Amino acid sequence: MLIVRKYGGTSVADVQNIISAASNIAKTYSDGNRLVIVVSAQGDTTDELLAKAAKISGGAGKREIDALISTGEQQSAALMAIALRAQGLPSVSLNAAQSGINATSAYGNARIKSVDPERLRFELEQGNTAVVAGFQGMNKYGDVVTIGRGGSDTTAVALAVALNADLCEICTDVDGVYTADPRIVKNARKIRVISYDEMLELSSLGAKVLHNRSAEMAKRYRVPLIVRSSFSDAEGTLVKDVPYMERMYVSGVTVDKEIAGVTLLGVKGEPGGAYNVFSLIAREGVSVGVITRTAGTGSGDISFTVVRSELGKVLGALEENKDVIRYTDLKYDDRVAKISVVGAGMESTPGVASGVFEALYAVDIGVKMISTSEIKITILVDERDTEAAVNAIHDRFFAMGAHDEEKR
Amino acid sequence: MLIVRKYGGTSVADVQNIISAASNIAKTYSDGNRLVIVVSAQGDTTDELLAKAAKISGGAGKREIDALISTGEQQSAALMAIALRAQGLPSVSLNAAQSGINATSAYGNARIKSVDPERLRFELEQGNTAVVAGFQGMNKYGDVVTIGRGGSDTTAVALAVALNADLCEICTDVDGVYTADPRIVKNARKIRVISYDEMLELSSLGAKVLHNRSAEMAKRYRVPLIVRSSFSDAEGTLVKDVPYMERMYVSGVTVDKEIAGVTLLGVKGEPGGAYNVFSLIAREGVSVGVITRTAGTGSGDISFTVVRSELGKVLGALEENKDVIRYTDLKYDDRVAKISVVGAGMESTPGVASGVFEALYAVDIGVKMISTSEIKITILVDERDTEAAVNAIHDRFFAMGAHDEEKR
Repeated sequence: MLIVRKYGGTSVADVQNIISAASNIAKTYSDGNRLVIVVSAQGDTTDELLAKAAKISGGAGKREIDALISTGEQQSAALMAIALRAQGLPSVSLNAAQSGINATSAYGNARIKSVDPERLRFELEQGNTAVVAGFQGMNKYGDVVTIGRGGSDTTAVALAVALNADLCEICTDVDGVYTADPRIVKNARKIRVISYDEMLELSSLGAKVLHNRSAEMAKRYRVPLIVRSSFSDAEGTLVKDVPYMERMYVSGVTVDKEIAGVTLLGVKGEPGGAYNVFSLIAREGVSVGVITRTAGTGSGDISFTVVRSELGKVLGALEENKDVIRYTDLKYDDRVAKISVVGAGMESTPGVASGVFEALYAVDIGVKMISTSEIKITILVDERDTEAAVNAIHDRFFAMGAHDEEKR
Repeated sequence: MLIVRKYGGTSVADVQNIISAASNIAKTYSDGNRLVIVVSAQGDTTDELLAKAAKISGGAGKREIDALISTGEQQSAALMAIALRAQGLPSVSLNAAQSGINATSAYGNARIKSVDPERLRFELEQGNTAVVAGFQGMNKYGDVVTIGRGGSDTTAVALAVALNADLCEICTDVDGVYTADPRIVKNARKIRVISYDEMLELSSLGAKVLHNRSAEMAKRYRVPLIVRSSFSDAEGTLVKDVPYMERMYVSGVTVDKEIAGVTLLGVKGEPGGAYNVFSLIAREGVSVGVITRTAGTGSGDISFTVVRSELGKVLGALEENKDVIRYTDLKYDDRVAKISVVGAGMESTPGVASGVFEALYAVDIGVKMISTSEIKITILVDERDTEAAVNAIHDRFFAMGAHDEEKR
């Protein structure tokens, strides 16, 4: 098999971690696989470099920040190649330009446009294990650009696509994707197989194990992904095209606590009403989470969520533009948490939503806002009820044994 | 003027140093000059990266070591560009590939083959100050190679040649080239103007202020060089084509203490005698310093110097090959120091050598070995006599006032 495997920052944080990862890579290699390794910067390297730049100037340009911090991954790549050679594995480190990773020009937040895998193919043909610096690309000016937080996951998937790899492995500090955050839900269980769509929902809802954009790219090109631990041999979570029959109807429960809910009362349903609201908020540079508007009541209420730290900015803008938006009243709640239940099987399984509400009712928790899509139910609850609510919902769908039965 | 200016590792060692260098650059810029800056890695960065690699593997390949340590200069370049922008100076950092620095493939010790200054010219035309990562180039495989210790000096001179710059400045932690090491000779004085040849002799004899190869390249392409302090405005030393009339007949005195002298007795003068000796030593990987053989005596004695730490290896090889080399006896002295007197005016000024011997005789120091070239006299003395010998010679040629008079 041709495998592209990514190691995150904690997985290469110190010399001992690098050596241990190299020994795992050597094992996979000796099992008859060819490998391309993608590495993040060591531990806090990126933050340390940023701190140094901040000491020099509060307004360091993005181009120079990219030139600076991209060296962190290049160092990891060289160190990993050195560790692999010490294991007897012929190996070369490659930076973004050498790996043929072409990206847009947007310094600090570029997108990978294409990968020209000529050099990578050459190294693989020579029997070398290539170690690629993650998180970066080369733009049309020949400058190094970074591709945003979590970018090394995206680097790995993009290389897997370009090389037509059999598998892309994301090695991280957790051993897979869980049905809920194990720090909040003690019964949380590792998911063995999950569909791209579910993974996407889970990762965009804050399950930090896999970056959103990489899940999206994996889905588009049907790259089989495995999320697993760098530090153990435990089986991870496989992300792939899951045939309907195999699907769980609920795959996970996620929580986001840093949320505020805003409701505008009396916004008329005339054309442009919603547009006025959300174009205003977009101009403030604020991303809106869930938006709900009940159909046909004529009352004209619109609710939405924003990240809590941006609430003040949003309220200020709304009040200043009351004449344009023409609402009758403005309410907000900055003590709410967003809980989402995700499952690709949901759309064809009646009763999931009612199961959620039933579970909450049983522990006497009220639901402040509801929004559902085909594979997701999102609710807002009082922040103080977060843990009880998540556990109640999780237990409802993942009670011991229930999950495996439901999967059939 | 178009100026290429290099800052060494101590000159960019911390954030404060970088900011202060940036402020000097901004001043030069506002005086109406255009600038290309070459930087070394910060302080101990290179050694720290090497230590990390050594912890992973004792036998890290040179290719990966180059990929690893070249990031140090790239970081300095980005940080300096950030500091310049904070001074209001438009600035971009460039790595070796971006700067068009093409080098041989010899990882760890490459040579600059050519510089394609297209990108540098573009940045200068845009009004940008370009900050180039020193010490590195790109080889034909697109890999980063480093160009050996002191390489950033060579980078600076190579860029000055390619850009046809008016001046190349080497900013370092000393404020110029001295007539002798001020730590040994208390009367040592700064040289204001020196010829390329003299600079070359001084730097190859261990005056650490300017790397040998960069002096060589500056001479070949007639690039005017200034060696001066990063930390003060003190006038430095100008290295250029010095017309004969301006030449000092002695420009400096240097010392090398880590030396051993070896003498082979009775090596016949037949063709191949010297070849046998020195090809043997070259095969051991040892560089030979001064070689002397007195002409026409028929005794067949050959003396030479080697770095003291390699003496054992050399003696072993000579003893093992006594049959091939056919010498009658082997003597060595590992307690000697090498003192050299350099001056381009020497060849046309009678009495310099006798001045050296007179000075030593006056302080009762014997001369163990003598070798002279057109612009250099080298002697070996007992190691214990080093300081007294250097000071005696220095005072002979640089007594207060004597130097300026001699210069006319």
